[in-house]
Parts: sequence; C-alpha cells; structure tokens
Amino acid sequence: MSAPRTSKWYIEYSSPHLGHMHGITEILVSVQTKFQKMDIVRSGAFGTCLILDDKMQASSVDEFIYHETLVHPVMLTHPAPKSVLVIGGGEGATLREVLRHRSVEKAVMVDIDDQVIEQCKKHLPSWHQGAFDDKRSKVISTDARKYLEETDEIFDVIITDLSEPVEEGPAYLLYTREFYQMAMGRLSANGTLSLQAGTAAIPYLLNFSAVYQTLNSVFPVVAPYQTFIPSFGLPWGFAIASKNQDPRQFSEAFVDQKIQERISSPLSFYDGTTHKGLFGVPKHVRRELEASKIVIEDNHPLFTYH
Amino acid sequence: MSAPRTSKWYIEYSSPHLGHMHGITEILVSVQTKFQKMDIVRSGAFGTCLILDDKMQASSVDEFIYHETLVHPVMLTHPAPKSVLVIGGGEGATLREVLRHRSVEKAVMVDIDDQVIEQCKKHLPSWHQGAFDDKRSKVISTDARKYLEETDEIFDVIITDLSEPVEEGPAYLLYTREFYQMAMGRLSANGTLSLQAGTAAIPYLLNFSAVYQTLNSVFPVVAPYQTFIPSFGLPWGFAIASKNQDPRQFSEAFVDQKIQERISSPLSFYDGTTHKGLFGVPKHVRRELEASKIVIEDNHPLFTYH
Amino acid sequence: MSAPRTSKWYIEYSSPHLGHMHGITEILVSVQTKFQKMDIVRSGAFGTCLILDDKMQASSVDEFIYHETLVHPVMLTHPAPKSVLVIGGGEGATLREVLRHRSVEKAVMVDIDDQVIEQCKKHLPSWHQGAFDDKRSKVISTDARKYLEETDEIFDVIITDLSEPVEEGPAYLLYTREFYQMAMGRLSANGTLSLQAGTAAIPYLLNFSAVYQTLNSVFPVVAPYQTFIPSFGLPWGFAIASKNQDPRQFSEAFVDQKIQERISSPLSFYDGTTHKGLFGVPKHVRRELEASKIVIEDNHPLFTYH
Amino acid sequence: MSAPRTSKWYIEYSSPHLGHMHGITEILVSVQTKFQKMDIVRSGAFGTCLILDDKMQASSVDEFIYHETLVHPVMLTHPAPKSVLVIGGGEGATLREVLRHRSVEKAVMVDIDDQVIEQCKKHLPSWHQGAFDDKRSKVISTDARKYLEETDEIFDVIITDLSEPVEEGPAYLLYTREFYQMAMGRLSANGTLSLQAGTAAIPYLLNFSAVYQTLNSVFPVVAPYQTFIPSFGLPWGFAIASKNQDPRQFSEAFVDQKIQERISSPLSFYDGTTHKGLFGVPKHVRRELEASKIVIEDNHPLFTYH
Repeated sequence: MSAPRTSKWYIEYSSPHLGHMHGITEILVSVQTKFQKMDIVRSGAFGTCLILDDKMQASSVDEFIYHETLVHPVMLTHPAPKSVLVIGGGEGATLREVLRHRSVEKAVMVDIDDQVIEQCKKHLPSWHQGAFDDKRSKVISTDARKYLEETDEIFDVIITDLSEPVEEGPAYLLYTREFYQMAMGRLSANGTLSLQAGTAAIPYLLNFSAVYQTLNSVFPVVAPYQTFIPSFGLPWGFAIASKNQDPRQFSEAFVDQKIQERISSPLSFYDGTTHKGLFGVPKHVRRELEASKIVIEDNHPLFTYH
Repeated sequence: MSAPRTSKWYIEYSSPHLGHMHGITEILVSVQTKFQKMDIVRSGAFGTCLILDDKMQASSVDEFIYHETLVHPVMLTHPAPKSVLVIGGGEGATLREVLRHRSVEKAVMVDIDDQVIEQCKKHLPSWHQGAFDDKRSKVISTDARKYLEETDEIFDVIITDLSEPVEEGPAYLLYTREFYQMAMGRLSANGTLSLQAGTAAIPYLLNFSAVYQTLNSVFPVVAPYQTFIPSFGLPWGFAIASKNQDPRQFSEAFVDQKIQERISSPLSFYDGTTHKGLFGVPKHVRRELEASKIVIEDNHPLFTYH
Repeated sequence: MSAPRTSKWYIEYSSPHLGHMHGITEILVSVQTKFQKMDIVRSGAFGTCLILDDKMQASSVDEFIYHETLVHPVMLTHPAPKSVLVIGGGEGATLREVLRHRSVEKAVMVDIDDQVIEQCKKHLPSWHQGAFDDKRSKVISTDARKYLEETDEIFDVIITDLSEPVEEGPAYLLYTREFYQMAMGRLSANGTLSLQAGTAAIPYLLNFSAVYQTLNSVFPVVAPYQTFIPSFGLPWGFAIASKNQDPRQFSEAFVDQKIQERISSPLSFYDGTTHKGLFGVPKHVRRELEASKIVIEDNHPLFTYH
Repeated sequence: MSAPRTSKWYIEYSSPHLGHMHGITEILVSVQTKFQKMDIVRSGAFGTCLILDDKMQASSVDEFIYHETLVHPVMLTHPAPKSVLVIGGGEGATLREVLRHRSVEKAVMVDIDDQVIEQCKKHLPSWHQGAFDDKRSKVISTDARKYLEETDEIFDVIITDLSEPVEEGPAYLLYTREFYQMAMGRLSANGTLSLQAGTAAIPYLLNFSAVYQTLNSVFPVVAPYQTFIPSFGLPWGFAIASKNQDPRQFSEAFVDQKIQERISSPLSFYDGTTHKGLFGVPKHVRRELEASKIVIEDNHPLFTYH
C-alpha cells in the first residue's frame, strides 16, 4: 500500500498540462541519434521502456498490447496476406507479430534509424525474438517515402509503426495524404494498412481525428479503433484502412476461428472478445472523428506536443 | 506543439513507481473532512477535478465517461428498474444519470461525507444538475453498512460509487464479501449491482481481480468490464453483478433500442457500439481475473496504494 | 519526520537540469500582466510566495533576508542617504526597508508593472507595511530607463530590485552597461547602487560574473556579495557599486554602530556579523567573477534560463 | 536560455513541502546496502552525485565546498594536529583534505558501510584521489560508537562526516549527547571536533539548533557556521566544538598565513575571506540556535525528514 516511493523518475509530457512520471531504476541508453532522441530505461511499473523524442514507444510489460493491436486486426482484415511492409517498428516486435502469421512469405521492414534498431537488438532481445533473423525478413534502413517512391514491390499489408509526428522528428511526413496515396499505390487488390494515430483521450482528439480524415480522403474503408496501453497513460487510437474489407463486420467467432487457422502460437491480448472491445469506440470519440475537417498534407503537417 | 509548460501541478501516485501530473490553475477546495482529504482543483487538461485522499475521482471534461459507464449498463441489465440505491457518489452525477431513466421512481443516495456533498454542490453544479432537488431523490448522510443493516427497503439496482479502498479511508469495508452479501440481501428478484473496481492496467490487476472474485463468491452472474477515463491515466475496471441477467449477451441493436425507450435525453458516451467496447475486455485481463483466488473479507481487506 | 507528502506543487526550473518543488496549498493570483506572468501562491515551507515569469521573487518566510541584504549594506555604504531611488520592487518591501533609515527624506519607486503593485498591495500587506503611504514615498509606474532619461533628480542611493533578465521579460535592458551609465549619471557625489545579480551557485556563475564585470566597466568600486535565501534554492549574488565607498572595509563594530544610529527599528537578519558573512564571498566565486570578460550591453544582452 | 528540459530526474525531498529535482543522464549505482539505500547518479548540473537514503551527500561539481568547509576550519582550530579521526566519510574526500595538512601523521577513518566505500572507490576516484592508499591512512569498517568505546587512541581532531539522522538510518545515534561525550573523551588537550548539522534554512532550523545545543552541553567552546553547497539546495549548517580554541577569533590574515604554512597544495574554496563568510552566521540563525532548549540524547534522538 504505502511502499516507499522511488526517487528516480522519467517524466513524459503529453501536453503543457499533463505529465506521466515513471519511476526508473536504470538508464540503459540515452543518446541523440542522427534522427531523434533515444532513451531505454528500466521502470518499476513497466519494465524496460523504449522512448523516442521523449515519447514512450513501448514497454516490456505491455508491448504485447500495442503490437498485437497494431498487427493482428489488420492481418485478419486481409484474406491471406503473403507480403507485408512494416514502416518504422525499429524494436522488431511488429515484425515478430507479422511473422506469426503462417501465410506470410515476405516481410520488409523500413526504418530510417539504424541506431534505434541496433540498440533495440542489444537491449530488447525479448521484443524481436529473432524476427530480424527470420529468412522471410528483410530490413532496409532508409526513409520510407524514398523507399515507396523507388520500389516496385506490391504488398498485401502495410503497417506504419511510427513515433508521433513531432516537429523536427523523423516521422511527420509519414502522416500526410500524400504519403497515404503512395502507400495505397503499393497495395495489392485486397490490400490493407494499419497505423497508430495518437491518443484517443477526449481533450486531445485533434491528431486522431485528423489522421482518420486524412485516411478517409484516400481509402474507401477506414475503421478507427482504440485500446489502452497502460504505459502510455492515455487511451490510444489506431486505424485500419483498406480497399474493400471492414474489420468492424467480423463476429467474435470469426476472429477466433481465423486466429486458430492462421497464427502459429497463442496470443496474449487479441481474440474475438478483444476485437469487439477494440472496435467498440465510444460514441463521443466517433462523433469527434466524424466531425473533423482536417486533412493533413505535406504543406500542412500536424505536430503533437513535444 | 510547444506551448510553455505550466508550473503548478497536482501529482497523483498510482504506485511507488507511477505518477500522473496535472497542470492546475486554481485550488478551489483543499480540506481534511471528517473522513478523508478533499481537493477540488482546476486543471488545464481536464477542467475542474474532484480528488479524494489524493485519488482523482472525476473531472468536468470526462466525468460523463465515468458516470455513464457506471450507471447505464447496470440499469439496462435490469428489466425495469424503479428503485435505485447509490452508495457514495457525493458529486451527484451518478444520481443525475440514474434519474434520466424514465422507469425510476425512487433514488436513494447514501454517502458518509456530507462535507463532500456540500462542497460539490457549491463548486460542481454542472455535475449534479439539480439531481439532489429531484423529488424522486433522497440523500442520506451515514455509513452505507449501517444503512444496509438497518433499512428494510428493497432495490432493483444498487450502484456503489466509491473512492478506492485506501488504508484509513472511509470505503475499504464497502469492498468485502460481507458487504456484498448485505447488498445482495436488499436486491429485488431481478436485482443488479455495479461498481468501479480500480485500474485494469496489467501491472496493477490485483484489486480488480480480487473484487471480481469477491463478487463471484456472492452473486450468480458477474460481468467485468472496462473503460478509459483519461483523467485517471490508466484503464479502469468495473463490474456488474446480478441475480440472473448478463449484459454481455446484449447486442448493439438491443442496447440502442433500450436507450431509446428508457432514457429521457441523449447520452454522450454510451450506446450499442460503446457497450461492445466496454465488455470487450482484453484476453490477458480476463485471464488474470479468472486466475485470482483472493476473496476480500472484513478481516482480510485490500488496500490500494496511497 | 515522515509526514505525508503534499500533492500540489509549484515547480521552478533554474536550468534544464535543476528544479525546485514547492508544495502549495493555495493559488491566490495566476495572471499574465501586460509585462510578465505573475503568480502568488501559498507554500507549505515558505508561506506566501511572489513568482514572476516562473521565477521565485520572495516568500513571506524569508523575504526579510532578501530585502535586508539588498537594502541595508548599500544604505550604510553612503555616509547619509537622503534621497533613494528603488527600481522595480513592486512588493513594497524594498521601499519598507529604505524608509527605516532615519536619514531618508525622499524615496522614489519606479516599477513598470502596476498590476504587480496592485496585487501585492492586496495579497501581501505584511510586505509593504504601509510603505506606499509613507509621505516620503513616491511611486511611479513607468519604464525605469525612460524615467532615468527624463528625470533631472539626483539620488544618494539607487537600488535596482529587478526580476531576472529573461528573454521577452521586462527587465533585461536594466542589466546593461548603458543602463548602469544612466544610473551613475543620476547619483550624487558619494552615490551608491545595489542590485541582485542572479545565483552564486558554481555551475551557474555566468550571470553574476557578467553583471559584476559590467558594473566594473562603469563604477570605480564594485563589491560583490552573496547570501542564502532558502526559497530560492540556490545561493544568491548581489553587488554594491559606488563612486568611492567600499563596504568590504567595514568592521563588525562599525556596522553595528551605524545600524544603531541610523535605523529606526530592530533588524532580523543584518548586523555586523552578518555583514562579514555577506562579503565573505568564497574563493572560487571571487575567482570566477574576476576571470569573466563579459560586459553586458544593450546589443549583447544576457538572459537567464526560463 | 531555453535549452530543452531533460526528462530523467532524481527528486530529493527536504520536507513534505520541498523537493529538489536533479536532471540525470546515468544511474551508476542503485542498491540497498546492509545499512542504507545508496545511489550514484550523473546529473546535468552537478556531475556525479552520491546519495544515501535519498539524501544528497556530495556532487563532483561542488564536493570541494563541502569537504573544505568540514575539514580546514577545524584543522586550523587545532595548533598542530597530528592524529585525526574521520567518522563516516566513505567517499574518501574528507580523508583527502585531512591528508593535505603537513602536520598529520595518522588519519583513521571509521565508516560502518564498506559497500559505500567500495562503490565510491570504483565510481568516484577523483574524490578520494588515492587517500585510502596514503601510508598515514587507516580505514576501519565498523560502527563508530563501538570503535570509540573500545579504542584507547587519542586524537587531536575528530571530524564526523555523517549522513543525516534519518529514522532507521545508520547515523542517528552519532548525533547524541552520549556520543559527543565519548568523542570528547578521545580528544587530546587542544582537541577539536567538526560536523555537518543539517540545513541552516529558516523553516528547518530544528536540527541545526539541537545539534548546536547538544554540543554545548558537552564542549566548552562551540562555533556554529554555515555555507551553501549548491547541490544541497539549501544553506547548510556546520559546527566546530573544542576544548579551548575558537575559530571565530581568527582574522583573515591569520587564516591565510596558516593555510600557507600548513597545507601542501592550493585550496579551491577556503581562505581568509571565505573563513569570515563561513562564521558570519546571519542574526536570525544565531538567535534560533541560542533559543533552542533541545539536547539530543540516545533516548530522545532527532530524525530529519525522509
């Protein structure tokens, strides 16, 4: 109940008025890479935490929630995904979840920051679990826009696992209409895309709404969803965009059956019941998403508090 | 993006390793009542906040989420609730939501701390919205166990809207098997009960699990659910216990129809889709709840970090 | 020993790596004036605190230390001060200390921010103690440089009681060589000037050193000194500049005798022993002050962390 | 001026209402020894910091202030110190300063916690600078009271360099009348003793006053003094107790001459001017020290906030 409070803290600010304090016991990495500020710390509540540009990316205690949420619904939304592109995702855990799908024959990961990949390989081995060494994997260290412009590969699923669009950060041009159009151009006939879209907390819905509307300006179907990653301290928004499939139609039983058929090992977070929870977005959030008029463009980027 | 950070903060600790910082602009109330420490502050992110024993109870920006989550699912779980007992709920917002149900003829609220009620009446008028003056309402200021022992009234719905069970706080004996047995004894044939049960965050599931198992030891049906109240900084657990009804069976359409029939004004948070979200408890949380062996008893109370 | 820690805090940052947390119970004022951000809060350790642009100015528990340090040594450095100019000092406590000197016939206070003066009159009456109503006092609300340019008055003592030179704050042009030359021009034959010069803490001596050297570029005698105002959280630097008097020469007995002769009521902080403490600046600080080459000019202002 | 603020912090509380935040970049040590909690962290403002039981002991940037303040005045108060006992002082920096005195033939250091000594040897080599290996040094790892009871050695100077008397900490019985009597019994004819006595900040003078009065109950001469160690965030009290010498009588010139004669290498902090600063204790602090009636005894120990 009243164990002594720790003295060493990592403090993350979501806004000028909101901070999250994480008691820490170790600082494993604290560097400025070519692209961003990177910290890996050991926290008392959430284990090892990866933090980029002062934003919590994932923690060893609850990263399974984030990564299963980002990967499995979008994978099930495609009838039989063989080729997958992961944009970002330097920790390797998104790749890890993708590779659990038996249908996958090729998984390309494009992350701009090879220092992040290297440090995660070293300090977070339980996150990638050998995903980088799977023979289906290919890791490319370059800017995702450059990659998409130059490649002629076509993917069944694209997963953009990006840090938040902070000013001068590496990711903000990967949240624009132009970028989603490029992604759309590399998707196969039943292609689907997923992403995290910032917090779903009521005072801070601007970003989630704008990403939703921006996807809407490009894709025929956009299904927003949300979950709770405790280490983030706020509910978190996601979205699946697709050419023709809508995961909101799936019954619990359908999801449970597809997991059984397609995924090679037991999941911790996701199943049919969880699926209904993810897409059961509260009324006020759905209303805000629909009411937004903002479309993010290269010339009108959106930044989150930093 | 980078507005200047505020300098005045309310800091709430969920554990020795986890804190939430709320930027504040005003301190409206800061007193020690006969039963607990009480603060009402104005925060930059969440408006006016009620805090008891250093635990955020609700904020003007997102209290509708908490109160609709606590009230409407349990009210719909009863076929036609006429008499309702609210235990705790000093702000009056739970009472407010109860009174929106056309079927309600009598709503008794029992809160031990009349100073909390008085201060909330004064500083949070948009929370109760006149609920205390509704002719169906009756407010009793006493200990809820004493009330339940002495009353011979029978209720269709009991809602326990309590602060967390902190050591030396006023509420911890209202989370025990003995208390739930007393409540069960005052319920009518189709009677239902709801409560908040602490955080649903993975590292801190002890309390939610124990409350769930304690309810299980008394009630035939117990349906846990969760939502995210942004000002709490963590996902939050709830439960509905009943003699024979299970809200997990309700379809979206059924919920939407019942809201239409029974509730006198539009809701902000709750509808059929939201209902599926609430009861779509993630797999790992369900597993933890089921695995717990703890039953809270008067002689073995459970306390949360304080 | 281990009383429960408070939850409401004012946090002041001295640098990107150093913060001071003040537990607060009330926020009396929190406004943006025409010139600066102004807070008056009640703190658990230091009573009522005045904070401008997020910098602690003084607290009711230890303001006597700051104001006696700023006023009495410079007043004693002049043989018989009749006319005194206070620049800044909106709380009225500097004026209060000046008026305790029997020789004073005229005390002009020039503060740019009449909102600060008004709020301090209202909330901090024990600070000014009626000084504004003393018939020797004259309060002028204007920019001090404008005042100095236009006035033809001559003063025996000038006390610049300013907030720190923060970027876009109202005070940074009152720390330059040009300003000190203007002040020098308004001093009588034995004229003296005092000021606070920022922290004397070893990692942050840049400002104290630069102010010292800037004064040196204008005045024949400059005597730096320091004291410890607990609410500031760091040792604090001051300086006396004069045309020909040096307070470092004063013996304890001389100071005690002059206090006896000149000051109308007992002091709390300052006496002969304290005087030796003030001017007993540690060796490493003296060395840093002498080594500095920086002279602050209108075109090369210096800002402190904000 | 407005460099980005760090995200990783060490927070030290001096009272329920006062905290100091140190931005940190590395956590070198974070352990519970047999006797106390021990942290060594790298801070942005103060370099490497040693923290025991959540109390800052010293930092690489300003430890010279603390250690010169504790050692040189008491050494000069003795006419020709040959044998010195250091109690506590695990970092070795007190020993280092003692050994700079040419007259010293024997320096015994008694620290209860050999884990602290070992970790400091490893991580803070610039603090001891080889003092442990000086042939005049002898390090004994035992409880100081036990040592004093059993030894028959006599010392010219005893320096008690202890962490604060926190409840259940290792040091609180080394602040009592009984302990000072034992120390007095091991001093030679002109013997002197020095110690740190907690903060000299006005709201928290209880400890400094009580230590002063407790020394007064045992020693003929007690000279309190103070300095400011920036990393402590508050002014700090010290005292010299002796059989017959009073350092307050020393002139600046006397101190400078004795330093010249006795100390083998240049000092950074202490000289004649600094000496006058140290003993120029402000009037209100002297008044509080004299007014106190508290004598600390084994049966009535005093604890500081923790």
